Amino acid sequence: MPFEIERKFLLSAFEPPQTAVRQHIEQGYIAIRDDGTEVRLRRIGGSRVLGVKRSASSAEGSPVRIEVERELGEQEFTELWPATEGARLVKDRYTFEASGVTVYADVYQGELAGLRTVEVEFGSEAQAAAFSAPEWFGAEVTGVKAYKNQTLATRGMPGS
Amino acid sequence: MPFEIERKFLLSAFEPPQTAVRQHIEQGYIAIRDDGTEVRLRRIGGSRVLGVKRSASSAEGSPVRIEVERELGEQEFTELWPATEGARLVKDRYTFEASGVTVYADVYQGELAGLRTVEVEFGSEAQAAAFSAPEWFGAEVTGVKAYKNQTLATRGMPGS
Repeated sequence: MPFEIERKFLLSAFEPPQTAVRQHIEQGYIAIRDDGTEVRLRRIGGSRVLGVKRSASSAEGSPVRIEVERELGEQEFTELWPATEGARLVKDRYTFEASGVTVYADVYQGELAGLRTVEVEFGSEAQAAAFSAPEWFGAEVTGVKAYKNQTLATRGMPGS
Repeated sequence: MPFEIERKFLLSAFEPPQTAVRQHIEQGYIAIRDDGTEVRLRRIGGSRVLGVKRSASSAEGSPVRIEVERELGEQEFTELWPATEGARLVKDRYTFEASGVTVYADVYQGELAGLRTVEVEFGSEAQAAAFSAPEWFGAEVTGVKAYKNQTLATRGMPGS
């Protein structure tokens, strides 16, 4: 969907359920702007994606993210990838249903090994506000800059 | 083509030939990096294009540009366009054959009114080197930063 409304939480212990779909993700940033606008390359499973995200305000004034994505060919991806040097991260993503919503649990690798987060996307701000996090979710980090993927990719582990 | 090899010249007087194809272009930059990498939105005629360019070196060591472009829908373009504020330009492009090559003559508008450039793209560096500019071309500005579109969009008229 073009407008993204999401909430993000830390995870401590995490055992993916049998039903979870696991995807290996490598992503890197071509551009990260102070206003949060980002241009990202992502290899996820067998596909390669160019994505642009822009922060904006909804009619109600809340922050929402506008996202446009396009598939790339292998050669296009490979030629652009060097532009992401110094701004990359690797993670395994587990997608599954829990507490009536789709959750995306990310288990980071490499320099970020040990970090685990979970994201939930909502169709409206009302839904996002009404969501009650299940017990196995940790502290909420929605909007916390240190835990944004673009910051993790460039600055590494928060607090390190 | 994914690899771009081009030469660029100034134009003083310029009368587009009857055969020239005229296109109105509005373009803005989402990102411009110090290394020349750029992420661009362009409205050209009836289409809207997201483009990423990266500078690289060819096997022979000469600078070449890698370019990936994707069409956007009107809504996607409109939602991303605000991210280009302060980095935009408008021009009319005349495309035609001259001296055995395809030339792209750009007549800038708005704050850049009065500026005219012409670009020629080549299939190889040997062709680029062998090209002899016709008499009606002005000074060559290939590689001159002040005349790059990304600089024109953010800094305005060179020398102003």
